[in-house]
Amino acid sequence: MTEPLDLYPSRIGGETRILPRKEPVVHGPRPTGDGPLSDDDLEHFERRGFLALEGFLDAEETAALREEATALRERRAGSEAPEVIIEPGSGEVRSVFAIHRSRATFAALARHPGLLGAVTQILGEPVYVHQSRINYKPAFRGREFYWHSDFETWHVEDGMPRMRAVSASLNLLDNHVHNGPLMLVPGSHRNFVSCPGVTPERHYEQSLRRQEYGVPDPEILEGLVQRGGIEAPIGPPGSIVLFDCNVMHGSNGNITPWPRSNAFLVFNALDNALVAPFSGQPPRPEHIASREHVEPLEIGGRG
Amino acid sequence: MTEPLDLYPSRIGGETRILPRKEPVVHGPRPTGDGPLSDDDLEHFERRGFLALEGFLDAEETAALREEATALRERRAGSEAPEVIIEPGSGEVRSVFAIHRSRATFAALARHPGLLGAVTQILGEPVYVHQSRINYKPAFRGREFYWHSDFETWHVEDGMPRMRAVSASLNLLDNHVHNGPLMLVPGSHRNFVSCPGVTPERHYEQSLRRQEYGVPDPEILEGLVQRGGIEAPIGPPGSIVLFDCNVMHGSNGNITPWPRSNAFLVFNALDNALVAPFSGQPPRPEHIASREHVEPLEIGGRG
Repeated sequence: MTEPLDLYPSRIGGETRILPRKEPVVHGPRPTGDGPLSDDDLEHFERRGFLALEGFLDAEETAALREEATALRERRAGSEAPEVIIEPGSGEVRSVFAIHRSRATFAALARHPGLLGAVTQILGEPVYVHQSRINYKPAFRGREFYWHSDFETWHVEDGMPRMRAVSASLNLLDNHVHNGPLMLVPGSHRNFVSCPGVTPERHYEQSLRRQEYGVPDPEILEGLVQRGGIEAPIGPPGSIVLFDCNVMHGSNGNITPWPRSNAFLVFNALDNALVAPFSGQPPRPEHIASREHVEPLEIGGRG
Repeated sequence: MTEPLDLYPSRIGGETRILPRKEPVVHGPRPTGDGPLSDDDLEHFERRGFLALEGFLDAEETAALREEATALRERRAGSEAPEVIIEPGSGEVRSVFAIHRSRATFAALARHPGLLGAVTQILGEPVYVHQSRINYKPAFRGREFYWHSDFETWHVEDGMPRMRAVSASLNLLDNHVHNGPLMLVPGSHRNFVSCPGVTPERHYEQSLRRQEYGVPDPEILEGLVQRGGIEAPIGPPGSIVLFDCNVMHGSNGNITPWPRSNAFLVFNALDNALVAPFSGQPPRPEHIASREHVEPLEIGGRG
């Protein structure tokens, strides 16, 4: 057995540098036919690395997911389960992972015809859920999340070989411009930003709370923002942002009285399933990066 | 000699509560005659507690102030002077106080005909500078500043008797919507939010870096925002926001590559000069709250 080739070396103790992306952004055929996304939508996604779909789910669908999320948050407060991330200090729930496997409503969301159809148009082949979670950003003291490419982490720490994954972030509450919305750097997905340092062992136990590794260089960030600017799609509950696995994104803290919470699903192409982590370390747990549950999602199906 | 009456008790160990404002917001006569602000401007200020004036200073005036601010920041890095506030850890300059007395350009700004004219229209009598400073909010890791009323602090810690002061915040760099701009709660200036706790001694040595006292109750904040919303005036360098001493305001952190810096001047009515602090503690130093330099500003004059 040969070691898989590391197409995107990062955190190997070298300098920060920028490498060109080796895969397409939109893998599906165009013109696109009868998918939910238009050719314009796909062109927009390809050029900018994300696509905001306001009011993607209707009020009823969104309310059901929000109620489930609220109930989950209350039930898991102070939990020591590995899939529950607790705020240091307050004991409040900050994230719950693997919701597409634990909760029927979120399992159905992963198989929502419009969502799965759109993701399949982008990735061009059957997909499975690489990761899912609900993020709860409290009012008044929501913390920032610094700039990062998800793919950088998934590649180094989880062994995702190539850039052929798409995330869907669903607003469960109103996203205002001032309550720490997701900020993205348009066009940043076209390059891979290799990060300095080396990943320490069991890094994930801390990294979900605080980032120290996989942090891009400020000068590179500045260059990306000079070219692409910063966009923060806002919208009512039920709005979705689809974004490429390698687009640079982050969010500011939130001192407003408006909490923010969203459901987050990562769809990965079946032929991009995880190999051994490129860090050389043991894989992260199943609830963070799926290895066992790599079956194609079927629209409306139960997986 | 009798003790001055405390019209706005706060941090006296009691409950948080809301008291109605006892002074007008606009003290000058209306119709206003030939001042720089129109009657509409003054009505807007009275109702909302602030007024954004885009492009108030021209590019040349703004560039001179910005250069001075940049030079000051470099020269005072690591300074132990009391008027220089240093970021814990990095040693970087976060604020420099009393700039209207140390720097000729900022002394002239305090006597700028348009600015002093506008402030006098609002306060209705001769004014002096209660406090001045430059704030430097760095790119990538700018910290949040939690919600507060300046008057609450100036009353409790400095002995400002009444609400008859106006702040001017001048953008020295572009304020974007995502780099932690000043956020204000329209209408919040009409009530005084009495805060819990008791001010510890020499509180100011920490409070300029981190707030623990004079922090309004979250439920009261939520009510204020439900009624008034949140506004964050943005604008190019040279734009000014005039805001009432009692309007609730704050700012989010800043992870963008865009630093933010502004000059801040507080004008107080001569007849509202400081008395003994209502906390019962010794006054804060002159560079934070002026007691010795209470002479009326004259347009274009040297004070």
